[in-house]
Amino acid sequence: MDTVRVIEIKKSVFADNDRDAEALRAELRGKGVFLLNLMSSPGSGKTTTLIRTINLLKDRIRIAVMEADIDSDVDAVKIKEATGIQSIQLHTGGMCHLDAEMTRQGLDALDLAQTDLVILENVGNLVCPAEFDTGSTLNAMILSVPEGDDKPLKYPLMFSVCDLVIINKTDVMPYFDFSMEKCTRNVHMRNPSATILPICAKTGEGVEALSQWLLDKVAAQKA
Amino acid sequence: MDTVRVIEIKKSVFADNDRDAEALRAELRGKGVFLLNLMSSPGSGKTTTLIRTINLLKDRIRIAVMEADIDSDVDAVKIKEATGIQSIQLHTGGMCHLDAEMTRQGLDALDLAQTDLVILENVGNLVCPAEFDTGSTLNAMILSVPEGDDKPLKYPLMFSVCDLVIINKTDVMPYFDFSMEKCTRNVHMRNPSATILPICAKTGEGVEALSQWLLDKVAAQKA
Repeated sequence: MDTVRVIEIKKSVFADNDRDAEALRAELRGKGVFLLNLMSSPGSGKTTTLIRTINLLKDRIRIAVMEADIDSDVDAVKIKEATGIQSIQLHTGGMCHLDAEMTRQGLDALDLAQTDLVILENVGNLVCPAEFDTGSTLNAMILSVPEGDDKPLKYPLMFSVCDLVIINKTDVMPYFDFSMEKCTRNVHMRNPSATILPICAKTGEGVEALSQWLLDKVAAQKA
Repeated sequence: MDTVRVIEIKKSVFADNDRDAEALRAELRGKGVFLLNLMSSPGSGKTTTLIRTINLLKDRIRIAVMEADIDSDVDAVKIKEATGIQSIQLHTGGMCHLDAEMTRQGLDALDLAQTDLVILENVGNLVCPAEFDTGSTLNAMILSVPEGDDKPLKYPLMFSVCDLVIINKTDVMPYFDFSMEKCTRNVHMRNPSATILPICAKTGEGVEALSQWLLDKVAAQKA
């Protein structure tokens, strides 16, 4: 198995996370680095989605990935093996989220001068990660079909802070009681301007559109 | 739509949650009330599993349910409509978990003298709820097939605090890359004595065994 760098994240000492996040966001903008904060429930398919997307984009922009997890480095290893890009693992030491200072600790371990897009795969959790601004340029989340179309009702903050909602595992739609129409309505109730992109990371369906969305956003920040 | 009681949970002021949880556990034992703390990711099928199980058990033991959620009361209403038992909603006000004092606030709203089993449906989250002892008699969690067999590697604490791991949505096993053997190995790595019960809450498969497990545990506490 390939080895990846593992960073043990220290608990943040900053009292004002919002200010710190703004500072990090401005700093990244100055460096021409786009930071995407990707959130979701455990098992929604974040890693598979990333592998597909990165493989479509890696010859056009320079990408690095930070994989946050309570424990283990399976995701960072998987990403590195499947895409060959810079991939590091952040261990949160039991913490359920990342804030701006914790994100910065991860960024410090990357070669940002050689990077256009950093994707932060946040801890699998629909509650806490939504409460802490990581300093990301944009927030995205994955909702997978088996989780149900009612999730925006139950996790309002998560859906209201995300610019992009990816609906994954559309291939199993026939086996679940999931209505895309109801889901869209629930997402837009929380955030009327959220973009919704249905994909199937397993088959690759919709990943082209997701990659284009990301490419446009990264280009817009550089412009 | 039926209405259910909604309790707005206040943040706990107790410094020592472990001591408080032990006290609550002893108190419930004295009253002959069994408290099951049920945890899982969002969308794993907790509510559907509960409805099936309660409908099998409600003529044999007296059951009440406390549904914890950041917001909404859809789950408590669903349970009440589908089973007719005592069902209340706990609003955690954005908090990602319940501790013993918060659980007690919910229990205070139930008629415990008329109850053998209280099921607490914790916030959908594999991280934070595992860190706080609710005072429950036993902990259980649901892992659904679409989430993947690697979850015990990523959420070690959750699996190590659970006496029972329910594997739900076994009907979609053919559509997902999920190995029951690998899952069992991963669960037992975290907790060698955990009971693993595969079920399909949608079709009812395995729910009989789950109900019997619960019945035995409730009877054992009363003995």
